[in-house]
Amino acid sequence: MQLLTISLRLSAQKAILLQTNLTLLMYPYKDLFAFTKNVFLAMGCPQEDAQVATTVLLSADLRGVDSHGVARLTGYVRLWEAGRINAKPNVRIVHETPSTATVDGDGGLGLVVAPIAMQIAIDKAKQVGSGWVSVKNSNHYGIAGYHAMMALEHDMIGISMTNASPLVAPTNSLKRLLGTNPIAVAIPAKNEPPMVADFATTTAANGKLEILQRKNLDAPLGWIQDKNGVTTPNAHELKDGGALLPLGGDREHGSHKGYCLGSIVDIFSAVLSGANYGPWVPPFVSFLPVPSDPVGEGIGHFFGAMRVDAFRPADDFKTHMDNWITTFRNAPAVEGEKVLIPGDPEREIQFSRLNEGVPLLEPVVKDLKEVAEKLGVAFIE
Amino acid sequence: MQLLTISLRLSAQKAILLQTNLTLLMYPYKDLFAFTKNVFLAMGCPQEDAQVATTVLLSADLRGVDSHGVARLTGYVRLWEAGRINAKPNVRIVHETPSTATVDGDGGLGLVVAPIAMQIAIDKAKQVGSGWVSVKNSNHYGIAGYHAMMALEHDMIGISMTNASPLVAPTNSLKRLLGTNPIAVAIPAKNEPPMVADFATTTAANGKLEILQRKNLDAPLGWIQDKNGVTTPNAHELKDGGALLPLGGDREHGSHKGYCLGSIVDIFSAVLSGANYGPWVPPFVSFLPVPSDPVGEGIGHFFGAMRVDAFRPADDFKTHMDNWITTFRNAPAVEGEKVLIPGDPEREIQFSRLNEGVPLLEPVVKDLKEVAEKLGVAFIE
Repeated sequence: MQLLTISLRLSAQKAILLQTNLTLLMYPYKDLFAFTKNVFLAMGCPQEDAQVATTVLLSADLRGVDSHGVARLTGYVRLWEAGRINAKPNVRIVHETPSTATVDGDGGLGLVVAPIAMQIAIDKAKQVGSGWVSVKNSNHYGIAGYHAMMALEHDMIGISMTNASPLVAPTNSLKRLLGTNPIAVAIPAKNEPPMVADFATTTAANGKLEILQRKNLDAPLGWIQDKNGVTTPNAHELKDGGALLPLGGDREHGSHKGYCLGSIVDIFSAVLSGANYGPWVPPFVSFLPVPSDPVGEGIGHFFGAMRVDAFRPADDFKTHMDNWITTFRNAPAVEGEKVLIPGDPEREIQFSRLNEGVPLLEPVVKDLKEVAEKLGVAFIE
Repeated sequence: MQLLTISLRLSAQKAILLQTNLTLLMYPYKDLFAFTKNVFLAMGCPQEDAQVATTVLLSADLRGVDSHGVARLTGYVRLWEAGRINAKPNVRIVHETPSTATVDGDGGLGLVVAPIAMQIAIDKAKQVGSGWVSVKNSNHYGIAGYHAMMALEHDMIGISMTNASPLVAPTNSLKRLLGTNPIAVAIPAKNEPPMVADFATTTAANGKLEILQRKNLDAPLGWIQDKNGVTTPNAHELKDGGALLPLGGDREHGSHKGYCLGSIVDIFSAVLSGANYGPWVPPFVSFLPVPSDPVGEGIGHFFGAMRVDAFRPADDFKTHMDNWITTFRNAPAVEGEKVLIPGDPEREIQFSRLNEGVPLLEPVVKDLKEVAEKLGVAFIE
């Protein structure tokens, strides 16, 4: 472990972080991995599940999505303590056709359930060209992108989405009805790295708002509405009847399109599978109650895999993807910027974090130490 | 035909229209249908193709997407005159698996090619649960929603997307690299009408900007950038090196997410199928040249169909969709507004236009009369 003098490359998220003056502590990835895996083992996860769950969870830290990585480990532990996560789930197909399946996650960690479901989609794609799997009775599954990227090594396009507890007000709504419902799509290339899009269907990710709240900083208009449905810079309004806004921000800038996207994710993930949808999606945090009138089981995910050679020879596809990627990456850009390919920034961060370690905020480290003590797991030396 | 005193229900698009002081003329749907079909027949389309092309094209007028309806008929005729549309295409599958296909549109009208391709997706879904079809060598296919909605009567979810000629600059790009690349998703319900999302992956549709240009009205910031990549209210900048902006509008409001969406549409539609992608997509207007160094054939589309009973019993799914829809529709709304279900506004407009007729702008009528004369087709009495 080493103390980090903040010198990270800037990104939008980091720019906010820098204003917080919080101390970051650096941990080697392998140490964080061993610790996290031991926590999952202490929860009762089988060896293999603990290995997968750790890999998925820490892929967020490696890719710079700090809100979805090891910072959430204590949240999973609390849900398990509250009896809302099954550490030994029997994940199984409950309905299927040659190209589709519905999977019951048996209340397991989404970090474990999701890779199983994505593998089913991949296996079906091997057989009939494409595979599509809707999942019920699951929990938070980490970053959407991890699961989509599982398809890449098979020369497949991977798709991953999940619903989440309601934080977002549809256009015109005073009520939160949707989660930040992310979509990820991973597309293989030949000599270029793959394209990996992974984004919440809101204007801004919830993680950014938590940081603004902590530091009393203003949010840009179009991120949040107050309890009267009026856009506001005050992130604290989220605790007072406000809501996140769908991608687009307001009607004039297409918020109804972000609302469509979030709805599609919700329906594919939960109405297809039989999970809870809309305002019934159970919260990630254990101190909030589960809705007493569920319309399904747990939260829902949706996965897809398409073999590229189910459409044209794989080499043709990948050669043209290289051309697509280099054309976009080399396009003339605004002063001081460049045109990024989705997945570029995350890959750069991953490279640096594998080499230099993963930075964690001091309060996150404090939480992890408490969990370690509670579960009798040694923390990182 | 009757002259319309403008008293239409207001929508965002109509509000702009009202400021234009252009005269609207009303035509009964059946008269417009007969005329349009005769134009397609005069181009040499077989009876059945002319019938389908007319149905698809006018579905835009019925649903209130006036930019994509009969107003474009003269554009298709000019492309045909320029030898860029094949009126008698041999649309065929060139590559397939049980759940996927690639279709060669043989340079036909997208209005004809797309329903054939969507039907292939539906047929595959009947066999193996889902069907996915990528199309090359096609042309503009009307509104995305029409094709997605073909799935509804089969208790399937329908998906439709298409690429289009480059008007949109990715985040940070000075160059137009993507079309307005729409996505449509149609989802069946039980007693409620289906949910039909159909939206361009840009902040604003191009049709709205054409109206602003014509009347020298300002656009909201976040719709357009100028040739230096700076957001501008001046819609004329589009003719001077400017570009439309991806959904989100700017980086701070998530334009990289709109850029991801437009990219996914482009790749699914064209890199999978072997059509032109990115800056190579040929223009809809015949006075602009086709790129001299094509990377594929024509423009591309992508279609999907998923049987809902490939995931759970259809009645279960549709009952929960009804619950989803009524929950959202009845949510508390901001003063004077209501929460809309995607597809609600278009269905209302369709009801009124089937009964009261389709309003056309005077310049559109003038264009249609010229086409009628040129092709020796009688215009509407």
